[in-house]
Amino acid sequence: MGRAADRPISAQTLASAIGAKYHGSAEATISGVASLETATSSELSFLADTRYRGRAEASLAGFLLVRDEFVSMGSSIKLVHPAPHLAFAKALEILFPVAPVVPGVSARAVVDSTATVDGAEIRGNASVGRQSVIGVGTVIHSNASVGDNVTIGRDCVIRPGVSIYDGCVIGDRCIIHSGTVIGADGFGFQPTASGWVKVAQVGRVIIGNDVEIGSNTSIDCGAIEDTVIGNGVKIDNLVQIAHNCRVGDHTAIAGCAGLAGSTIVGARCMIGGGAMLTGHMTVCDDAVISGGTLVSSSVTDPGRITGVFPSLPHRDWMKMAATLRRSIKK
Amino acid sequence: MGRAADRPISAQTLASAIGAKYHGSAEATISGVASLETATSSELSFLADTRYRGRAEASLAGFLLVRDEFVSMGSSIKLVHPAPHLAFAKALEILFPVAPVVPGVSARAVVDSTATVDGAEIRGNASVGRQSVIGVGTVIHSNASVGDNVTIGRDCVIRPGVSIYDGCVIGDRCIIHSGTVIGADGFGFQPTASGWVKVAQVGRVIIGNDVEIGSNTSIDCGAIEDTVIGNGVKIDNLVQIAHNCRVGDHTAIAGCAGLAGSTIVGARCMIGGGAMLTGHMTVCDDAVISGGTLVSSSVTDPGRITGVFPSLPHRDWMKMAATLRRSIKK
Amino acid sequence: MGRAADRPISAQTLASAIGAKYHGSAEATISGVASLETATSSELSFLADTRYRGRAEASLAGFLLVRDEFVSMGSSIKLVHPAPHLAFAKALEILFPVAPVVPGVSARAVVDSTATVDGAEIRGNASVGRQSVIGVGTVIHSNASVGDNVTIGRDCVIRPGVSIYDGCVIGDRCIIHSGTVIGADGFGFQPTASGWVKVAQVGRVIIGNDVEIGSNTSIDCGAIEDTVIGNGVKIDNLVQIAHNCRVGDHTAIAGCAGLAGSTIVGARCMIGGGAMLTGHMTVCDDAVISGGTLVSSSVTDPGRITGVFPSLPHRDWMKMAATLRRSIKK
Repeated sequence: MGRAADRPISAQTLASAIGAKYHGSAEATISGVASLETATSSELSFLADTRYRGRAEASLAGFLLVRDEFVSMGSSIKLVHPAPHLAFAKALEILFPVAPVVPGVSARAVVDSTATVDGAEIRGNASVGRQSVIGVGTVIHSNASVGDNVTIGRDCVIRPGVSIYDGCVIGDRCIIHSGTVIGADGFGFQPTASGWVKVAQVGRVIIGNDVEIGSNTSIDCGAIEDTVIGNGVKIDNLVQIAHNCRVGDHTAIAGCAGLAGSTIVGARCMIGGGAMLTGHMTVCDDAVISGGTLVSSSVTDPGRITGVFPSLPHRDWMKMAATLRRSIKK
Repeated sequence: MGRAADRPISAQTLASAIGAKYHGSAEATISGVASLETATSSELSFLADTRYRGRAEASLAGFLLVRDEFVSMGSSIKLVHPAPHLAFAKALEILFPVAPVVPGVSARAVVDSTATVDGAEIRGNASVGRQSVIGVGTVIHSNASVGDNVTIGRDCVIRPGVSIYDGCVIGDRCIIHSGTVIGADGFGFQPTASGWVKVAQVGRVIIGNDVEIGSNTSIDCGAIEDTVIGNGVKIDNLVQIAHNCRVGDHTAIAGCAGLAGSTIVGARCMIGGGAMLTGHMTVCDDAVISGGTLVSSSVTDPGRITGVFPSLPHRDWMKMAATLRRSIKK
Repeated sequence: MGRAADRPISAQTLASAIGAKYHGSAEATISGVASLETATSSELSFLADTRYRGRAEASLAGFLLVRDEFVSMGSSIKLVHPAPHLAFAKALEILFPVAPVVPGVSARAVVDSTATVDGAEIRGNASVGRQSVIGVGTVIHSNASVGDNVTIGRDCVIRPGVSIYDGCVIGDRCIIHSGTVIGADGFGFQPTASGWVKVAQVGRVIIGNDVEIGSNTSIDCGAIEDTVIGNGVKIDNLVQIAHNCRVGDHTAIAGCAGLAGSTIVGARCMIGGGAMLTGHMTVCDDAVISGGTLVSSSVTDPGRITGVFPSLPHRDWMKMAATLRRSIKK
């Protein structure tokens, strides 16, 4: 059930490459990686969270990446590292190397003659507009659309079906997954007697370095000024980021969360899945918003904010809801 | 307001084709289908849910698909079947036949020379990567992107703008609607002093047979092992399925629902619209999660789980919320 | 931090063009627009909401669009208009003119020979199917897919990566943002002993005039009859509109909201971000649904409906939840 590496690797070599102390035979080779539950005698797994110690003890993994305290657990060969999960991430990069970028423009891409794409790889059915600049080592995958006057930095990966509107700016080493839309018009309308009047959205989206954005996420351009995503921000799938939001460095936003217009989120925050921030508010640095929580006023203290009751069997819940309603009507 | 069939059909012939008993004249022809409220004297409608009996009695439909007990209701011609909704589904297939697949690769598609696409239809602006295998009778619509080493079974429909990442496996007779993304990287990062470190996501997405997935849905690849969608699973629009999830056979997931990482859902479950499962949990077979409910711990008994209070006029709700807060502060 | 216009404009000329009274020197020129906080001496900002009066007083903006009552506030040049926000919207249109449509079909588009596209602009990597009709002045951007028998009116903008299924009808002056899917199959299945049976979805999506739809939104076709979006409706990003819904004229739906099947929403409603309407219900004209609220029964009176408790620091919330559970068990 694990994943086989392209070719086996000497366990000792791998240990050395990831900075782990190696406790095994010089001849042993690792064929791939797997979870503790499914790993076999030629596969590497890891124990990072002590709560899973029991699983590690029961594991059939031939190789285990562990902290020093577990070096003598069971009979597997140990690779010892103070941060096993980080070391495992490094091992994955070695075992599953990313294919190198092949600079060049596919004859089947549509790239405007005024765009700068030297050193980038533009695949078939991709589109790049006027005056846009794509950095060295960046890949624009098939069926992705880059508008006019867009700047994308070096070593980015723009996956199939991504749309980037005119004028947006993306830093270096960013990854944007399929279906994500950067820079669409914010939801800006003025009411009149004859209906809504559109307010042109003339700001851009500015994305820092080392940002990863999941699939089918929407980040709207600013109304006047820019929507800004800081360095090192990680955004999951199906996230809504409305116009004029600012997301501070290294903040992580989980799937299906939504930031309404002009939400200012600090640095190193964590926003849980499905959380909604209702806009025109500020969230301070280091705040944690629980999944599913609706936040309707500014968050001024670091720490966790919650707003969802735990679910119950339907009958119990309905009883609770009815009692709550009655107790309040007294 | 109904929908006209491409050409009228003999009502008797249709009844026979769908296995219904026919109670009408041999010459009668059906021109199309409509709801009970809008159907005219040449259109077919149906009564499946007895709660709509009043609507059926008031209907001007010339033809009604009903259970035996309603055979003498009103003056319309009856087509009698023990399961009217299923029989109606069959009638739709006859009245609105799907255009046959036309195998071949459009000159305007971008298909890698190492891909196997014999018997499949690859439309203009579609992309198919290296070593991928597309089954006989499958259609890859315009602007869909299929990565490298992807396997798609027979008689699938991959709609415009779908993105399927490298290595994913899709069974037979699957339908994937536009904008859906299969196999993007899971949201896997490790915290360090200098920010988040990406953990390569090396698993795949494995999708069974007879699966239908709505539009703009995201199903991430596994971190190490695979994200697995069972046979006969039906997933609606804008659904988030994070890395390492497993969804059991014949489970249905409604729009805007989210499964966080490592959620294991059993067979034949029904997950309501907007429900959120917070991850690292198990939902047993035959569970029903109400719409909008956040589930944060494993569900061990079949039956319905709920976690949302019914909404109220704003003033009443705010009064209730304030009273609740006060009562608790005592 | 503001946005510079393509070229400076005489302030007096601009005032006259937007119908504002001008209180300044005839030589003054405006270089661009900015928010009150960041505007400089050559930039235009506006004060529409009296709550921001303090910001306007502190602003360094050289030009302010205000109501008559604020004409003598501070030292900036005033453009006076009874509806500053609307006048500002007009100013944006003048300062940031939209590039004119260039009718013609890119040699890199895939347009079926039976489609009618005279006077429309079809960009590279776009796809237009059989018998479809695209109106004069409409732009189909790169990597957008228009199916067969689709009708799109005049002066529409169909952004990159939009997918429009066969048979859908879109009015005049509509804007559809990237990643949005119009007309995918509704979520219609019938349970049987051997799993779900698909019920063909034969209705269409009919969209009125002057509709704007954000990015990554899904509007499903009707099961039998049509899903209908009225004139002047504004829909934000990541919104789910299921089969058979009808949305009345000039209703606005914010991001991440969801309408389950057969939800009938009246005219001029406002549906907040993340709100969920559970389907088979009616919402009357002029209703307001608060963000994050789940509505599970029909709304018969205009006014606001709410269903979310304000979030709290986690510890307080958990205490409240526990007390609630206990009080009810008595």
